[in-house]
Amino acid sequence: MRLYLIGVGPGDPELLTLKAVRLLRELPVLFYPLEEGREPLALNIARPHIPQGKPLLPVPLFTGGDRERAEVARREAARRIREALAWYREGGYLVLGDSLLYASPFHLLPLLEGIRVEVVPGISAHQLAAARLSRPLAMGEEGFAVLSGLKPPEDPEGLARFRTLLFYKAKRAKEIAALFPNREAHVFRRLAMPGERQLSPEEVEGWDYWTLLLVR
Amino acid sequence: MRLYLIGVGPGDPELLTLKAVRLLRELPVLFYPLEEGREPLALNIARPHIPQGKPLLPVPLFTGGDRERAEVARREAARRIREALAWYREGGYLVLGDSLLYASPFHLLPLLEGIRVEVVPGISAHQLAAARLSRPLAMGEEGFAVLSGLKPPEDPEGLARFRTLLFYKAKRAKEIAALFPNREAHVFRRLAMPGERQLSPEEVEGWDYWTLLLVR
Repeated sequence: MRLYLIGVGPGDPELLTLKAVRLLRELPVLFYPLEEGREPLALNIARPHIPQGKPLLPVPLFTGGDRERAEVARREAARRIREALAWYREGGYLVLGDSLLYASPFHLLPLLEGIRVEVVPGISAHQLAAARLSRPLAMGEEGFAVLSGLKPPEDPEGLARFRTLLFYKAKRAKEIAALFPNREAHVFRRLAMPGERQLSPEEVEGWDYWTLLLVR
Repeated sequence: MRLYLIGVGPGDPELLTLKAVRLLRELPVLFYPLEEGREPLALNIARPHIPQGKPLLPVPLFTGGDRERAEVARREAARRIREALAWYREGGYLVLGDSLLYASPFHLLPLLEGIRVEVVPGISAHQLAAARLSRPLAMGEEGFAVLSGLKPPEDPEGLARFRTLLFYKAKRAKEIAALFPNREAHVFRRLAMPGERQLSPEEVEGWDYWTLLLVR
């Protein structure tokens, strides 16, 4: 039994790789994460490339803070994947953006022993953000860093070595940007999704999970 | 006049995006960097997707330390791109891996004023390295960092916050890995190119520019 973790890119259906598209066409079954009250973003991106009639199985996802509910969702997701792969032998799990970054199926792998996993990388949101600005992430001897923006970094000075900083889930974009007064900051909301907005950190109001802060 | 910087991925022709492939087909002229004594890697990756007879123009690249020779190469590259775009109106510059990371055409942009630039992201080598290991770059509140490995980092302790560290051009992979004794380290040489090898840092001998060190 084999499971492919397929990165479908940040939202533009043209940013899928040829390999992802081939697997969407060829694999006998596709899994997509579904959380109550949220759109199935990964499925929406992949849909133009999925042949009519292909079996599409939602697997539960829980991203809130409650550990017990997260664990229940994981066990149920793993059970559905196991059952389907016992029948179909192989399948693909659709992952928003890159399949290697903040990708929920990695939490399932301990529950999927005996299943071979192949990871198919996809374009990340932070790559598209830098592309929107026509600015490189890093050149020459520079580097860049990707961080969670759920909390402000405790020692912003430790990040001075990086040409570009990219904060995902940047709940407190304004506060984080203020830690880097000598740099420019750009906020991308719902990048490559319907309702995409590019803001300055000062303009950010309210909370949207799909908020990416780029500092350079 | 418009120039597309097209990331062609790390070496597997299936890891190009649909957008990259469309542009390779549609654009009237393609530029590729060519350095004396080196293979045209970006062109080799893109070639299966380029229609027969498409004009392909090499532009000089110099990656050595001599600033004057680098500047001469840049001026000549910019001159050729300007001349071709005056004729063709638009064209694509082929970039190995991601067009946003260590991508030589960004050095040309100050010499290409008046030309509109669109950046098309590609899969990076470090994404493929993590995929080869079936390990995520970061999960939850973690982050990851991409650095140049030309020199060992001066304060390795400052990198402790990152789940994964990726050193490109890791000339001294063994020495760098030794700075992180409590982590595992993997060296990828010529990843996704002919002659790909996966090594432990202790096995690294000699110098190959295409050496990526992953520490996690």
